[in-house]
Amino acid sequence: MTLPTDPAANLAELIRCPSVTPVEGQALSVLQGMLKALECMVERPVFSEEGTPDIENLYGKLAGQGSHLMFAGHTDVVPPGDEAAWKHPPFAAAIADGQMYGRGAVDMKGGIACFVAALARYVEAHGKPKGSVSFLITGDEEGPALNGTIKLLEWAVERGEKWDASIVGEPTNPDRLGDMIKIGRRGSLTGRITVNGRQGHVAYPHRADNPVPGLMQLLEALLETPFDEGTADFQPSNLEVTTVDVGNTATNVIPARATAVFNIRFNDTWSVESLQAEIHNRLDRAAEENRLRKGIDQPVDFDIDWLGRPSPVFLTRDEKLVETLSASVESVVGSRPQLSTSGGTSDARFIKDYCPVVEFGLVGQTMHMVDERVALSDLETLTQIYLRFLEDWFG
Amino acid sequence: MTLPTDPAANLAELIRCPSVTPVEGQALSVLQGMLKALECMVERPVFSEEGTPDIENLYGKLAGQGSHLMFAGHTDVVPPGDEAAWKHPPFAAAIADGQMYGRGAVDMKGGIACFVAALARYVEAHGKPKGSVSFLITGDEEGPALNGTIKLLEWAVERGEKWDASIVGEPTNPDRLGDMIKIGRRGSLTGRITVNGRQGHVAYPHRADNPVPGLMQLLEALLETPFDEGTADFQPSNLEVTTVDVGNTATNVIPARATAVFNIRFNDTWSVESLQAEIHNRLDRAAEENRLRKGIDQPVDFDIDWLGRPSPVFLTRDEKLVETLSASVESVVGSRPQLSTSGGTSDARFIKDYCPVVEFGLVGQTMHMVDERVALSDLETLTQIYLRFLEDWFG
Repeated sequence: MTLPTDPAANLAELIRCPSVTPVEGQALSVLQGMLKALECMVERPVFSEEGTPDIENLYGKLAGQGSHLMFAGHTDVVPPGDEAAWKHPPFAAAIADGQMYGRGAVDMKGGIACFVAALARYVEAHGKPKGSVSFLITGDEEGPALNGTIKLLEWAVERGEKWDASIVGEPTNPDRLGDMIKIGRRGSLTGRITVNGRQGHVAYPHRADNPVPGLMQLLEALLETPFDEGTADFQPSNLEVTTVDVGNTATNVIPARATAVFNIRFNDTWSVESLQAEIHNRLDRAAEENRLRKGIDQPVDFDIDWLGRPSPVFLTRDEKLVETLSASVESVVGSRPQLSTSGGTSDARFIKDYCPVVEFGLVGQTMHMVDERVALSDLETLTQIYLRFLEDWFG
Repeated sequence: MTLPTDPAANLAELIRCPSVTPVEGQALSVLQGMLKALECMVERPVFSEEGTPDIENLYGKLAGQGSHLMFAGHTDVVPPGDEAAWKHPPFAAAIADGQMYGRGAVDMKGGIACFVAALARYVEAHGKPKGSVSFLITGDEEGPALNGTIKLLEWAVERGEKWDASIVGEPTNPDRLGDMIKIGRRGSLTGRITVNGRQGHVAYPHRADNPVPGLMQLLEALLETPFDEGTADFQPSNLEVTTVDVGNTATNVIPARATAVFNIRFNDTWSVESLQAEIHNRLDRAAEENRLRKGIDQPVDFDIDWLGRPSPVFLTRDEKLVETLSASVESVVGSRPQLSTSGGTSDARFIKDYCPVVEFGLVGQTMHMVDERVALSDLETLTQIYLRFLEDWFG
């Protein structure tokens, strides 16, 4: 059986599977075929959640004695949008000018294709590694993400799986392959502030209580002073007001209620709990200052709700994992990658509860866009980096 | 023919007509009957406007040689809401504990009922007045007000009508009959501010431009400093932010646009034009200060639209009208009424372009509420005041 050593061939097969979340589209089956060629054991657990579609997932393992490395990722992709706007069809894997076009080319079928190729080259050159390599691949990363990585981790642990380190193959490089490894992510916390006033006629403001100025004061208290100035490993925490809504269409009526939602991406100065406490403090103080300034009886009457599940901040301090990967990058591209914690959240935030995790993959520039594409040379470079990492890790 | 000298009987007849805007409900016909008994000429012009229902109006006149006094008002009423919540049915004119219950009891079928009774008593006692008394009564005051007072005034002027003074019979007394005559009204101006930003992901705020903080700064510039401290005749001008809207439901997205609407009730410090200029200045200054403070290239990118038709401020300085009415009130209730310009707008703002106008009617406490009602004693008192005014005016 031929080993899947060519990342471009692997990627072309994967791109041709139209696996737009929640559809499996044969992408996991194609991957399963490659892993079987590498003599991996493969399981395909399906997870369900009321109100969402059932989702297929894949857990593959080339088992051995020694360290256990997990490669994590997803085969589902975001929709292609207007297919007519693409230079090449989004599920054709067309090659032009040294680029392979297709949805998922960089996010992140490309990362999977390269890691599979790297492991194949490793096995071809050295035989089975002195340790285990597993693939934790979901079909629910771009969707609600309820039937994906979280459940797959729990499912594997129930079966006795333990890992020593994980690489997530998401596209981490802003401009050039080898630029950036992500060694952590900021946390994310979303809150909704509701200010309760009293409705009335604009001509009689003393009989009403307009909630808008109070809400503005509370938001000002969240915006006026930075939460921190950043840390050694992280950017400053940043709060954005994502919406403010009153919904009053009568221009002669003072509204009864005003709401705002904010999202804060926060660094390791804060835990979710300490940040919530800080926000409560700021709001309470602003409400009280407002009372004193206006000489009124009651401070701004507000409620705060925390929306969704907050993501805690995390930072991977495992020196062996970070250093081995950094050295692998440097040996292939000639320069050290930046160790970054910037950007949005990823499934690494779930994996970090089980083992040290870093993220490294292709260049993200075209992800989620029309004409998503990857340079064939990048596929080869990333494969070499992953191979070098496997050799050093298991060497 | 019996003259309609009893205000309670007049009001009961009017309340029993369910004349919820835009329905005439026989209210104008009932009034027409009373005016015919007084030997008034009566016309019933119907006005139309595309997109709104046709509306019936009434112009009645007891013509004579001398001064021409206009009584103005409306027979339409706001909906009763949940009729089951009323102690007595809203269109029954039930009497209990010295109160007559019904929609329109004070706003303002009661005022009409009293003025008709006053004129009837005048005619009974003195014969026709030495002058003209006309009734300018619309069925479109509580609705869109497009087919009411404005058109009725134009209609009458086209027929050669000129007036020396007008009393609008709206409920002007806050607590006790005789408390307050309205001799003017603040102006009203409504604006919408739209701040244009750039949409983006909350994790990458440097690639986006959140419009919310800019909007907050602009609103703060409108709210932080009072527009004035009031004048001899008017309260301070007051601005209320009536709504703020973004409508972004994605908590990980920085929105592209934020809007707010404000309404300002302003006094005779300002014309509509000078106030618009002041608001423009404040917003431009705040946008520029924001640019300087943040050290950015562009000030807040905003637009302002003026919504609807602004109402200019007005004040009636006609001493004969104000003094005669004040003296009539004092002679009946024993104390001088307050001359006020407080509260919302009324049709007096249209009449003031044709002749001096004041407003005086019943106690407004229950207007627009469930169990709207009027004390029978108030009906008698108001009738006596109106009668005294007619005697003094034509005396």
